[in-house]
Amino acid sequence: MSKQTREKILTLSLQLFNEFGEPNVTTSMIAEDLKISPGNLYYHFRNKDDIVNCLFEVFAKSLTQIIAIPEERKADLDDAWQSLAAFFKLSWEYRFIYRDMNDLLYRNRMLEVQIKDILQRKIEIAARLCKGLRKAGQMEISDNDLQIVATNLALIATYWSSFHYALEPRSIQQKQKESMRQGIYQVLSLLQPYLAPAAAQHLALLVHQWQDQFTETGSTGTHSESAVSNREL
Amino acid sequence: MSKQTREKILTLSLQLFNEFGEPNVTTSMIAEDLKISPGNLYYHFRNKDDIVNCLFEVFAKSLTQIIAIPEERKADLDDAWQSLAAFFKLSWEYRFIYRDMNDLLYRNRMLEVQIKDILQRKIEIAARLCKGLRKAGQMEISDNDLQIVATNLALIATYWSSFHYALEPRSIQQKQKESMRQGIYQVLSLLQPYLAPAAAQHLALLVHQWQDQFTETGSTGTHSESAVSNREL
Repeated sequence: MSKQTREKILTLSLQLFNEFGEPNVTTSMIAEDLKISPGNLYYHFRNKDDIVNCLFEVFAKSLTQIIAIPEERKADLDDAWQSLAAFFKLSWEYRFIYRDMNDLLYRNRMLEVQIKDILQRKIEIAARLCKGLRKAGQMEISDNDLQIVATNLALIATYWSSFHYALEPRSIQQKQKESMRQGIYQVLSLLQPYLAPAAAQHLALLVHQWQDQFTETGSTGTHSESAVSNREL
Repeated sequence: MSKQTREKILTLSLQLFNEFGEPNVTTSMIAEDLKISPGNLYYHFRNKDDIVNCLFEVFAKSLTQIIAIPEERKADLDDAWQSLAAFFKLSWEYRFIYRDMNDLLYRNRMLEVQIKDILQRKIEIAARLCKGLRKAGQMEISDNDLQIVATNLALIATYWSSFHYALEPRSIQQKQKESMRQGIYQVLSLLQPYLAPAAAQHLALLVHQWQDQFTETGSTGTHSESAVSNREL
C-alpha cells in the first residue's frame, strides 16, 4: 500500500512537471491532487528535489540502455534511427527535464554531474556512429568535421523538443509528440552530406517510411488534449 | 534621479538573472542588493515580470537590428559571421533569457508571442542566407535540404549557450564567453558541406582568423570570475 502511494506520487509528479513545468509545481499541489496529506507525501519524499531525483534516476537508467551500443556491434543508420526514436520517446515522457534543464542544473547539484555525463556520452555515441559509418565506407568525413558534426548531433537531439515547444507553445500535446519524428530527421540530416550515395539513399528511404508512418498516425490522431495526457501515464 | 534608480534596477536585475537564473532571483534580493526599499522598487516596476519584460524589450530591439539584413543586400559568409558574432555577444549579455526560456515562456504570455516570433525570424534569416549563397553560386542545396539546414542553424544558434552551460556548469564566466566563438563555428559548419570550393575555403579562412583571435584572447585572459562579471555590466 505504501509502495503504491510512492509510485502514485512519482507518476502524478511526472505528469504535473511535464504539463506545468517543474518550477511551477509544489509538493502541496501534488498532495492535494492525490488527495493525501502533506505529511504522507513527506513520509515518502523529503522534498520536491527528492522526487525530481527519483524521476531522473529512472530516466537516466532507461537512457543508458538506449544509447549503449555494444562495442563489438557495427554502427548503422537503421540502429541510429531506432535509437533516436527510442531516445525521443523517452525525452517526451520526461520532457520536464529537457525543458527546465538549466534551472534544474542550477538548483540541483546531483543532476549537474549526471546531466553533464549524459551530454558527454551523447557526443561520444554520435562520434562512434560517424566513425562506424566511415569505417564501413558509408561516410566520408575528416576527423575535425566528425567532432563538430557529433557535437551538433547531440545538441539538436537534446534541444529539439525545447525548440519546438518555443515555436509552438500552444500546440496540443499530440502535435508536440509528432514533432519528435521531425526531430529524428533534423538530427540525421546532419549526416546526409557526408554519406556515400548508397547510404544517402538508405537514409532517404528511412525518411520516406517515417513520412508514411507520420501520415497514418496523423489520420487516426483524433484524441483530445486531455485524452492524450491521460494516455501518457 | 528617479530615472537613474530605474536604470540601476534593470542593470542589477540583469546581472543577478544571468548569475543565478531568473527563477532564483526575487524583487527583495534586488532591492536589498541596491540598498533601496521594496516600496521604491515597486514604484518603478509592478513586479519581477515587469522587470523581465523591460529587459526583454531592450534585448529584442537589439536583436532585430542584428538580424535585419536589408532585402537588397546580397547575403555572404562574412556578413553571416559578423551577424552571428553580434548575436552571440547579445545572447551572452542577456543569457538568462536563453537559459530559462521554457520557464519564462510558461509564465509570461507576452514573452510567449515575442520569443516565437524571434525564433521564426531566425529560421527565415538563415533560409535567406542559404538562398543568397545559392543564388550567388556559392552553395548547392535542394529546397528541402535548405529548409532543414535553416532550422538546424536557428536551433544551434539558439541553444549553443545552454548546451555549453550544461556541459560545463562550473566553468568560469570568461570560459563560457569564449565558448560563444565555438558556437559561431558550430552554426556555420552546417553550411560547409554544401558550399562551393571557393566559399568553403573562405569559411576555413574565417575559422582560422577566429582561432587566432581566440588564442590571443586566451593568452591575456587572466581575469578572475568576479572581475569578469563586473566588466559585464
